[in-house]
Amino acid sequence: MRTIFIGLAALALASSAAAQQQPAAPAPAALPAQPPVAPISAQMQRTIDQLREAGLSDERGYAIVGDLVAQIGPRISGSEQEARARDWAVTMLRANGFTNVHIETFPVPGWHWERQEATIVSPSHQPLVVAALGGSPSTPSGGLEAEIVRFPDLVSLQAAPESALRGKIAFVDEHMSVTQDASGYGAAVVKRGGCPRLAAPKGAVACMIRSVGTDTNRFAHQGSAGRAVAIPTASMSPADADTLDALLEHGAVRVHLDIQAGNRENGQSGNVIADIRGREKPDEIVLLAAHLDSWDLGQGAIDDGAGVAIVTAAARLINALPRHPRRTIRLLIAGSEEPGGLGGDAYGRAHASEHHVIAAESDLGADRVYRFSSGFSDEALPYARAFQRALAPLGVVPGDNRADGGTDLGGVKANGTPVVDLQQDASRYFNYHHTANDTMAAIDPEQLRQNIAAYAVFAYMAAESDWVFGSSAPAAAAAH
Amino acid sequence: MRTIFIGLAALALASSAAAQQQPAAPAPAALPAQPPVAPISAQMQRTIDQLREAGLSDERGYAIVGDLVAQIGPRISGSEQEARARDWAVTMLRANGFTNVHIETFPVPGWHWERQEATIVSPSHQPLVVAALGGSPSTPSGGLEAEIVRFPDLVSLQAAPESALRGKIAFVDEHMSVTQDASGYGAAVVKRGGCPRLAAPKGAVACMIRSVGTDTNRFAHQGSAGRAVAIPTASMSPADADTLDALLEHGAVRVHLDIQAGNRENGQSGNVIADIRGREKPDEIVLLAAHLDSWDLGQGAIDDGAGVAIVTAAARLINALPRHPRRTIRLLIAGSEEPGGLGGDAYGRAHASEHHVIAAESDLGADRVYRFSSGFSDEALPYARAFQRALAPLGVVPGDNRADGGTDLGGVKANGTPVVDLQQDASRYFNYHHTANDTMAAIDPEQLRQNIAAYAVFAYMAAESDWVFGSSAPAAAAAH
Repeated sequence: MRTIFIGLAALALASSAAAQQQPAAPAPAALPAQPPVAPISAQMQRTIDQLREAGLSDERGYAIVGDLVAQIGPRISGSEQEARARDWAVTMLRANGFTNVHIETFPVPGWHWERQEATIVSPSHQPLVVAALGGSPSTPSGGLEAEIVRFPDLVSLQAAPESALRGKIAFVDEHMSVTQDASGYGAAVVKRGGCPRLAAPKGAVACMIRSVGTDTNRFAHQGSAGRAVAIPTASMSPADADTLDALLEHGAVRVHLDIQAGNRENGQSGNVIADIRGREKPDEIVLLAAHLDSWDLGQGAIDDGAGVAIVTAAARLINALPRHPRRTIRLLIAGSEEPGGLGGDAYGRAHASEHHVIAAESDLGADRVYRFSSGFSDEALPYARAFQRALAPLGVVPGDNRADGGTDLGGVKANGTPVVDLQQDASRYFNYHHTANDTMAAIDPEQLRQNIAAYAVFAYMAAESDWVFGSSAPAAAAAH
Repeated sequence: MRTIFIGLAALALASSAAAQQQPAAPAPAALPAQPPVAPISAQMQRTIDQLREAGLSDERGYAIVGDLVAQIGPRISGSEQEARARDWAVTMLRANGFTNVHIETFPVPGWHWERQEATIVSPSHQPLVVAALGGSPSTPSGGLEAEIVRFPDLVSLQAAPESALRGKIAFVDEHMSVTQDASGYGAAVVKRGGCPRLAAPKGAVACMIRSVGTDTNRFAHQGSAGRAVAIPTASMSPADADTLDALLEHGAVRVHLDIQAGNRENGQSGNVIADIRGREKPDEIVLLAAHLDSWDLGQGAIDDGAGVAIVTAAARLINALPRHPRRTIRLLIAGSEEPGGLGGDAYGRAHASEHHVIAAESDLGADRVYRFSSGFSDEALPYARAFQRALAPLGVVPGDNRADGGTDLGGVKANGTPVVDLQQDASRYFNYHHTANDTMAAIDPEQLRQNIAAYAVFAYMAAESDWVFGSSAPAAAAAH
């Protein structure tokens, strides 16, 4: 009590002194020097304004993703459904006036599941909502039963002795943070592959993780655990993780896990390509990417039907201008992004000799673009500022020069192509991501339209200008 | 343009005239005469205040439903899980100091499902998220395949000719409205039993309905379709209904439906009874009811683990007072409510000779009580007003004298027992109701506590007073 009193008295004195003295505020630090904004012509500005307004009232984009969801629905890498989606995309792109529309196939493992079930068998009996993670091997036929050992995070799993894990199921219960810039995902997703990698050498028989997601709904989030997963690995819904937590407070918990999964023989995927041929420099390519495959509990509306719709609808608006831009605008509608960017890598290999002047990907749902970041050489920063100025009326703020580009751009980025990020607000994306709940209900049509406007403005400026961007990242020695 | 100008001018004139004249407002209509408020003693008021505050800081209620969800989880009528839940309840009620704790068993059909799957097979191929409705018969082994015929509501199904339905699957696509007082549910739930009843005589082979629910999540809502359902009947998630709608715009849609379901041999359920014995009039019973069974895709947290927790925690607070109230407070933790109030009916039959002075049920989730309605004789309306005045500090407003009581009170109500409704805000209840998403995440602990406070205040007043309520509804000739 005395301590509190003294503290309060000291606080009162300090406040009183502050009120009497009113010291001058420190001088603000000088702002860092900004690169100039590259000028654009009055005609380009008029076209930018026209495309922005056309994007904000676009209805085609929402119809495209709606049609993909209804006509195809789930389309996991290497599946018959993914092949049907490619045919759908070819028809849709031709109908929307694109040229050079074609499919480029490539082999994939084609991992898929046949069964993914789990049940608490002791101290009580109730089913768990789980999803096998991509790359997971099968349990023995009929499943396996073992005690659960909980770890609050991967670090504590790493620190655990073998004796704690041998013959048991490792349960990584780490929570994911909501972040606007999706950085929470980067931190959380490590446990998908990290759990089996750390637990298998210690003799664990399986891994189960609290889903990588930010919702509290009864959905397990799918996703890849890697390509050589040592033990059966599954995610579970947050409610099921909470149930395990509650039971573990009272003692041992045993779970029966049954995963039947594996790769396809001669698995095949493919990219779909479509162009708006440049009127002056057709060999200089502005690449817009999204991916066609999805996980298969949901319908792939936000991941990544929305991206397919955004880049297609944006390019279509440019295609409808009185004349094509100088450079070619190309759509890369990639296959097999989910297992780890296989389509983007295949594209990079197949098109390494072509000149990609810049590339952007849309693959974070359908919520608004809130920030524009570049990955340019220093000399090209005035172009980044010009993009940012043109996107400002859409509520897009300037980002940094550390753009990532996204998984579908892995191949062209490795070849040295400069990339940009039209960063979408990811605050609610991971509520739906990779779940059965990835449906049209997750898409806000108004925010989808803002994306279309932003991509149309960006792609037009990049294709109509003669700007040379240079990459902030050097080309990789070999394709990754 | 001329019309608009004249309109604006007329408006301006009218405004001006109004401003100048300032006519007197019409005299308010006389308020209807209110019955007086029954007086309560200063000591009773002190205890009411004490119970209200104890309820608002209660932690036991949330722990009770959490334990039921973790230890038992889903517990469909007539199942082994429901039997385990009864044992759990007996242990829990004894540990909380109740007496006369026992189980009263009764036979039930024990309808349950083994398989509930549906897939669009033409024009495309994708799975639908469905739930077999309670009472549904099985499809032929291996399922059935038929064309979908959509009806926007039951009325249009009723009006359809046989030729439109023979050999087809009737799809009732009616939407449900969000209502605070749950009246939207009463309107929407009719389609569960209505679809098979209307479609079967016209030769339909199955029924599928848009789920009775108000959310947009990818969950099918379970629920009873009745006791003699003629054809296989399932609900589907809103996203799946939307997918069918989108496909039906382009032409015929065929669906494969596979339901394997049926009743149990010698199905048994049971009610759990627990008392706080009245200190002066132990044979006069104030009945508080909730139900223990649940549907089995979710964990039965809001339906009706919450109700079990609310009435138990409220009664426990009264049990902790220095002395018991005059009358007995009894908990009826009913079995088999979901198939149609079988536990409430069984209780009514078994306890017809006992004197139930009043009864209330908690079975609409865990959101706050916002209104108190009675079902009293006119002479007893001052007591209703006394309850309403005592509940007002909890934000509860006065309702009417047409209380329903709820399904678990069907038996005692038929015997002539007066009932009240502590009406919960149902605005978000049907987002979760009967889905896999009925988990602890659907419960707001603060609103749960408000319920506990309200039930404690109500039950104490009813049990400590000598009020005689009389029922607004006459006793039924026979138990319903």
